[in-house]
Amino acid sequence: MNISFPEFQPGSVWLVGAGPGDPKLLTLYAYHALQHADVIVHDALVDQNILALAPAQTRREAMGKRGGITSPKQSDITAHLIELAKNGLRVLRLKGGDPFVFGRGAEEALPLLEHNIPVRIVPGITAGIAGSAYAGIPVSDGQSNQVISFVTGHDKSGNVPVVDWHALAKSSPVIVFYMPMKHIDKIQAELLNAGRNHDERVCVVSNATTDKQQTCHATLGNCLEKLDNSDIKSPAILIVGPTVSLSDHLLECFS
Amino acid sequence: MNISFPEFQPGSVWLVGAGPGDPKLLTLYAYHALQHADVIVHDALVDQNILALAPAQTRREAMGKRGGITSPKQSDITAHLIELAKNGLRVLRLKGGDPFVFGRGAEEALPLLEHNIPVRIVPGITAGIAGSAYAGIPVSDGQSNQVISFVTGHDKSGNVPVVDWHALAKSSPVIVFYMPMKHIDKIQAELLNAGRNHDERVCVVSNATTDKQQTCHATLGNCLEKLDNSDIKSPAILIVGPTVSLSDHLLECFS
Repeated sequence: MNISFPEFQPGSVWLVGAGPGDPKLLTLYAYHALQHADVIVHDALVDQNILALAPAQTRREAMGKRGGITSPKQSDITAHLIELAKNGLRVLRLKGGDPFVFGRGAEEALPLLEHNIPVRIVPGITAGIAGSAYAGIPVSDGQSNQVISFVTGHDKSGNVPVVDWHALAKSSPVIVFYMPMKHIDKIQAELLNAGRNHDERVCVVSNATTDKQQTCHATLGNCLEKLDNSDIKSPAILIVGPTVSLSDHLLECFS
Repeated sequence: MNISFPEFQPGSVWLVGAGPGDPKLLTLYAYHALQHADVIVHDALVDQNILALAPAQTRREAMGKRGGITSPKQSDITAHLIELAKNGLRVLRLKGGDPFVFGRGAEEALPLLEHNIPVRIVPGITAGIAGSAYAGIPVSDGQSNQVISFVTGHDKSGNVPVVDWHALAKSSPVIVFYMPMKHIDKIQAELLNAGRNHDERVCVVSNATTDKQQTCHATLGNCLEKLDNSDIKSPAILIVGPTVSLSDHLLECFS
């Protein structure tokens, strides 16, 4: 393969997006990092099939934040990454999706840089786009929308996100929520209150792009009942908008 | 590599995102497709270094739409893909970025499906995310925004996009525009008129993630003058919002 990769230097941290789950969606860059790391510090969303692509002897450490589960503090993660790098290791900090899409990428990189640790950041495919796609749903379509919005389902303390719901409902025909399950009742209520239609189609996709992918199709009005009658759990995304109906035709492109 | 790829069947079309330009950001899936295609029909945004990764004997055809340049009609592209597939070829339709992010993915797939041609769609990394990143700019940061919006710089006929500018300006602290150069004066005027601040930072990134990447940092108020004094041209993205200033610290993570 005629591609030149930068050297993974001892004592540096590579902050790499692993994509949404399907190992086929890993970048060549991330795959290269997996082959050259001394230690992989991965978050809770990174699929086991991706970790399995590293050499057997590479050290793997689970260290991630996840709603509802006892998680290490961000400051502990940072301190640990600094310690590993100071010990001269090639540290691969592997995160689900993309580090800069609700992934705390800057928050993890800045303290490392302050400690003079060389950091490299490698984008990955974000679940909001590829996870929607694997459910047959384009986030944009020429007939439907010229704006796409991505919203995190909760803020840093787990609360409902701070969003101008009326403006969001008006500005963006297609909205994708990341990790919506905890506050899905409030998301539904806010969107309806802001004027979005009871009848518009929505889809929840859990474990998107993995073997465990599940979808729940519904309308904005009946999605809570439909989800109650399903066994869908986090991690998930929620897609709201006119492009959801294209899955009736496009889902076969992902089978 | 212990990953099982689906068979690239003769007579089928794979509609694949090539990512923003850097070949390292190609997915394993796209790389696999490049090795197995009989013919690659690529759009104008696909980097030559990516096309070079296919075997030398693979047929390559440029066929893409690009503002300001005489381009084939979408119906001609579709007819050509159908003809190639009907001739029993493995057809790789390679598109810059992600097929479903302002990439006409559904528009290209649906007529093929109507002609009973098997279609597979493979997501790629979108320029709005990785292109911003390579300029040191996260599209989200915990301190700054819980909403990210992506907007196309023009509609299908090249006009200013149909956007509720007041709602967009209020709903989304960070906004990324794709292909903004043609209408950048109107985008600036609409955002200012909708209440966005003259002083907020913006960045235009052209040929993002490639060897030809150029950036122009400015404020929303002075970006037209700054661009006039630069030699930045399409293809480009425009990032507006508080995370632009993080590039002062994060750019070194991409050097």
